[in-house]
Amino acid sequence: MTERTLYGYWRSSAAYRVRIALNLKKLDYQQVSVNLIKNGGEQHHAHYSALNPSELVPVLIDDNLKLTQSLSIIEYLDEQYPQCPLIPSETEAKYRVKALAQDIAIDIHPINNLRILQYLAGELELTDVKKADWYRHWIEVGFHSLEKKLAQSSGHYCEGDSLSLVDLCLVPQVYNANRFNVDMNAFPIIERINNTLTMHPAFIAAAPENQPDA
Amino acid sequence: MTERTLYGYWRSSAAYRVRIALNLKKLDYQQVSVNLIKNGGEQHHAHYSALNPSELVPVLIDDNLKLTQSLSIIEYLDEQYPQCPLIPSETEAKYRVKALAQDIAIDIHPINNLRILQYLAGELELTDVKKADWYRHWIEVGFHSLEKKLAQSSGHYCEGDSLSLVDLCLVPQVYNANRFNVDMNAFPIIERINNTLTMHPAFIAAAPENQPDA
Repeated sequence: MTERTLYGYWRSSAAYRVRIALNLKKLDYQQVSVNLIKNGGEQHHAHYSALNPSELVPVLIDDNLKLTQSLSIIEYLDEQYPQCPLIPSETEAKYRVKALAQDIAIDIHPINNLRILQYLAGELELTDVKKADWYRHWIEVGFHSLEKKLAQSSGHYCEGDSLSLVDLCLVPQVYNANRFNVDMNAFPIIERINNTLTMHPAFIAAAPENQPDA
Repeated sequence: MTERTLYGYWRSSAAYRVRIALNLKKLDYQQVSVNLIKNGGEQHHAHYSALNPSELVPVLIDDNLKLTQSLSIIEYLDEQYPQCPLIPSETEAKYRVKALAQDIAIDIHPINNLRILQYLAGELELTDVKKADWYRHWIEVGFHSLEKKLAQSSGHYCEGDSLSLVDLCLVPQVYNANRFNVDMNAFPIIERINNTLTMHPAFIAAAPENQPDA
């Protein structure tokens, strides 16, 4: 039986994506919580830094193979465990899915990551209001273009009627948007798909509030 | 013959990555310059926004297929045009390469992208000094961990002695580091590999200063 361990944190969007993938593929895993806030951030502690020098979550250990970067981890899982495929095999759809996922995971999420907010509050001494403006701004810019793209690609989910990597990136990003009171009425397609996805058992089980370290 | 057009900008790191890939694979292409600075930024003009609602470069049109997101574009090229492979076929190496490329393209580059610098200078009224501090900070954080990872994976290039997707991300990021006077003595492996790569004809031809719109 494969030993599988996910090093993550309940509120990390990147870990959340991987939890959804593992659940959709019905893969058992144990979780190790890396508390990004307490004790100066456990991601900076020596044993975690040795595991991933980037000092970011998640890391997945799958059968002795160490994997980092959530998009890469999910592609690995999709290749190794083809049940509930998350990346289409047809060329045009495959690269549309990868690019849409990257529109979220590259163009929105890293700009609002915890360490950025810490720099804004620390080095730049931004007020909470200005920090929240920053956060909402980059989500709104990203969702504005994503909404237009989904008007072309979506059906029941982001890529037609099939679950895909894009959906796994969308739900954690909408979770963040809601935390920071982004007005989701401006993004009806994103809102509709998110409402469908968040009722799916694999997404419910992966939700931040349902993790042991929440 | 395949019609192939790259919408890019000489100084865009993401376009630079794709130019290197096209050159390594010896694929002909025409370039359309999208000037990110002049005229309020041509990426925001209606005809480009219709092409890519994200209003970011690059876009590659390959035989009528529209592709966005540089990492996704390069994976597409690697699948369609297998000469000079950029992603290893063996599982462990494949996902190491993808993750290392994402360490640059997700964890460093988006935080320092033009629109971020414009927000820092505009909405947040940061001085040029503080803006440069921001820029260097995220490169140094990223290079610090990348240097440790390359100590494990690198040979002549980032992934052993074979050119890979990581190298295509590394060179544009070092170009940015040099523009902002990051002390590269702190990163001897990155510096060594970059010095090797920037002597390669495909990388020279892709360099910002050698583009028609420079």
